[in-house]
Amino acid sequence: MGSCAALNEASVGQVSFFADHRQESALESTMASVVVVDEATEAKLSGVRFARLVRDNPAAGFAIALDALHPESEEPAGVHPSAVLEDGSVVHESASIGPFVYVGPKARVGARSRVMAGAYVGPGAVIGEDCVMGPRAVVMERCVLGNRVRLQPAAVIGSDGFGYVLDKLEDGTTFHRKVPQVGIVRIEDDVEIGAGACIDRATTHETIVGSGSKIDNLVQVGHNSVIGPLSILCGQVGLAGSTKLGRGVVMGGQSGAAGHLAVGDGAKAAAQAGITEDVPAGETVSGMPAISRVKWLRAVLVFKDLPALLKRVRRIEKKLGEG
Amino acid sequence: MGSCAALNEASVGQVSFFADHRQESALESTMASVVVVDEATEAKLSGVRFARLVRDNPAAGFAIALDALHPESEEPAGVHPSAVLEDGSVVHESASIGPFVYVGPKARVGARSRVMAGAYVGPGAVIGEDCVMGPRAVVMERCVLGNRVRLQPAAVIGSDGFGYVLDKLEDGTTFHRKVPQVGIVRIEDDVEIGAGACIDRATTHETIVGSGSKIDNLVQVGHNSVIGPLSILCGQVGLAGSTKLGRGVVMGGQSGAAGHLAVGDGAKAAAQAGITEDVPAGETVSGMPAISRVKWLRAVLVFKDLPALLKRVRRIEKKLGEG
Amino acid sequence: MGSCAALNEASVGQVSFFADHRQESALESTMASVVVVDEATEAKLSGVRFARLVRDNPAAGFAIALDALHPESEEPAGVHPSAVLEDGSVVHESASIGPFVYVGPKARVGARSRVMAGAYVGPGAVIGEDCVMGPRAVVMERCVLGNRVRLQPAAVIGSDGFGYVLDKLEDGTTFHRKVPQVGIVRIEDDVEIGAGACIDRATTHETIVGSGSKIDNLVQVGHNSVIGPLSILCGQVGLAGSTKLGRGVVMGGQSGAAGHLAVGDGAKAAAQAGITEDVPAGETVSGMPAISRVKWLRAVLVFKDLPALLKRVRRIEKKLGEG
Repeated sequence: MGSCAALNEASVGQVSFFADHRQESALESTMASVVVVDEATEAKLSGVRFARLVRDNPAAGFAIALDALHPESEEPAGVHPSAVLEDGSVVHESASIGPFVYVGPKARVGARSRVMAGAYVGPGAVIGEDCVMGPRAVVMERCVLGNRVRLQPAAVIGSDGFGYVLDKLEDGTTFHRKVPQVGIVRIEDDVEIGAGACIDRATTHETIVGSGSKIDNLVQVGHNSVIGPLSILCGQVGLAGSTKLGRGVVMGGQSGAAGHLAVGDGAKAAAQAGITEDVPAGETVSGMPAISRVKWLRAVLVFKDLPALLKRVRRIEKKLGEG
Repeated sequence: MGSCAALNEASVGQVSFFADHRQESALESTMASVVVVDEATEAKLSGVRFARLVRDNPAAGFAIALDALHPESEEPAGVHPSAVLEDGSVVHESASIGPFVYVGPKARVGARSRVMAGAYVGPGAVIGEDCVMGPRAVVMERCVLGNRVRLQPAAVIGSDGFGYVLDKLEDGTTFHRKVPQVGIVRIEDDVEIGAGACIDRATTHETIVGSGSKIDNLVQVGHNSVIGPLSILCGQVGLAGSTKLGRGVVMGGQSGAAGHLAVGDGAKAAAQAGITEDVPAGETVSGMPAISRVKWLRAVLVFKDLPALLKRVRRIEKKLGEG
Repeated sequence: MGSCAALNEASVGQVSFFADHRQESALESTMASVVVVDEATEAKLSGVRFARLVRDNPAAGFAIALDALHPESEEPAGVHPSAVLEDGSVVHESASIGPFVYVGPKARVGARSRVMAGAYVGPGAVIGEDCVMGPRAVVMERCVLGNRVRLQPAAVIGSDGFGYVLDKLEDGTTFHRKVPQVGIVRIEDDVEIGAGACIDRATTHETIVGSGSKIDNLVQVGHNSVIGPLSILCGQVGLAGSTKLGRGVVMGGQSGAAGHLAVGDGAKAAAQAGITEDVPAGETVSGMPAISRVKWLRAVLVFKDLPALLKRVRRIEKKLGEG
């Protein structure tokens, strides 16, 4: 019956929520029949048309309502007749394997996991329980997904790391010799990976995405990188090889990190920041090269008016008989 | 028979065009047999080897010639025997459904649309008339394409928006709770979406790409964004959630916009610009944070010589007995 | 038997290598049984537990050991029964064609090439010898891969270039007319293309990736671009149309080049650089707009302290009775 919508888009019979005080006028005029609010808001409301659900964290309450009122389409357990399951692969009887799915030799798919049309599970790869692999998602050879991992469409886990060594042929000609990438990617529990995002396998060991981390669309994670738990990588972020992110790191859209460096727990990079050296825990950085955000904001203010500053210096020089 | 080529690459029997006055020497030496020119050029030409087609807009004339002389390979109407069409899906008899295509329950594919090998049309999705879905393109559940929409290979329409709420388990552990993304993407008529580009579905309502807009490869459009008609998003552009672009907006390659802001009609962002606040209609912006392009160009000139400016200030200070 | 690992991750029985003098303590404590070293290191070693393999270029030696000790999983020659080979396609008897692969009319796949599950070889496309197309990789109509070319999963070769001409309908309405992209992409020998990377076909001629060049994940190469041999494009690089890169060019992660310009042999662009004009051979550039890296590094140092510089100018002005 009921369904969910934002305050300004809701119609009668729908559930909404109020968590951002810039939306006060939307709250007053909403057509929603139920609104999730916090206690402070509830106390101030009077004479409103809608029922209230009180919760400390109204946005979380709304997420729960969305889950309840918009259940995901269920796919029946079982293997579509067009799917190819190689010898020695093990698919749990409660899992759902869609059309044109490939499951390689010795690969495993756990209980209640849903592998959607055209997804690829490479030889020896492991998909845990309650996972979702969207259409055309790829998990390459021997890579491992924990439980409740969700891959959006066309995500790629375990592509080769970008590793080459400049070498010479006997005649002296130089070439880029490929360093075989024989490690894996390990995705821990409760991770989500966005559409088209690519996580490269390690050269010899493991590229790791820590439990509960969320990675947005078209993000690139280089080989041997280790992302701590509960981190957030927004759209189009790029991590070069051997980047270490701590716990709860947030990287804004299109930001990047040069490889072989560490970003401490809880650090944040603003959109388009370019991290070129270690970032201490808790620090927020901006700019390229990334520096403390506070410092960057001040520098940028002056940058915008550099022509005026230049003129002032010229005027002074003139006054002093210089230039 | 005839075919098309650039002035400097054309050989006898080919059609070319002249629209850029930097190519005057190529026009003089071209081997093309036919050149599309504008009236002003035609008036100046004498003694040339090639036939002329006069048109106000020679580049457009060339595009029409390309269309006529290089017709797209026709795929026969009908459904490839390997495709899977779920119960309740409706495919027009003039449509072409390639090998390994999946069409979900209640999905619709309109007249003359061409769904190429391995493409995915999710449950309840609607593909209009005269559309092309390239190989491995994905349209997720309930998303809607208008008419004459063209998806390049591996484009993803309707991946989940990147929405999480910080929440707590009963034991106090924090985690990112997924906000179910139950809205859709609506692509209006005459839109083209590039290879690997990702357009996220709205949380509860619609992410919209306006009619006639063109989106290049690997562009990321966040949930709830609304792109006006006739806009151009170049390669690797990123829009965070709830970005509103007006009519005829142009975003240069690798530029981005923070979410919850508006870019006015006809505004332009230069390559790599980072838009962090509303942009007025008609404005052109550059830099990160993006500012007026004129202002940015002047500031950048001074930036390059900052060390010299610093030295001048030091010299003044010395003269004044400071520093 | 033996396998390979980094010095600090190796266990008894494994092969490692030493090429970076910051890893001297790892060399002393490694558990590896064999370490590839150069002659200078060998001369200094005494009393160590491990056997040494001496080679001028230890990293290259390690790559060879990786190849020998971790052979790629062999797929048997032959065509999977689920694959679709159109009339007139030619697949060498030693090639391997995986499940759900499409090979279009008149397409060719050369000796020992391996086309993995769900890959797409368009009409008339040519895949040379000893190539690997990863799962879901796409080579569009008439595009050509040389020998020993490797496409990572979901790479797209030959998507349409982003070409439109502003045109008018008879009623005066403007629209973006698509310029048909009828050229091809030519990938020369020994090239590797990363996961999700997109190489657009030329408008009428050829987009070229030169022999031995390596392109990382999610890179975008615009139509009509020509990349010289032995170049390196790191993750998320973007080249607009008609960019010419010379021989041995290196572009750092997330850097970009505006179109219709040339980057000379051996030039380098740092991460996130934005190239807006020609770059001379051998030059290294940084920043947006990209300038000489040396100059940029100096300017950035002053940028960080712009507020202090502004204060110094204000103090001078006060002293001079201005401002």
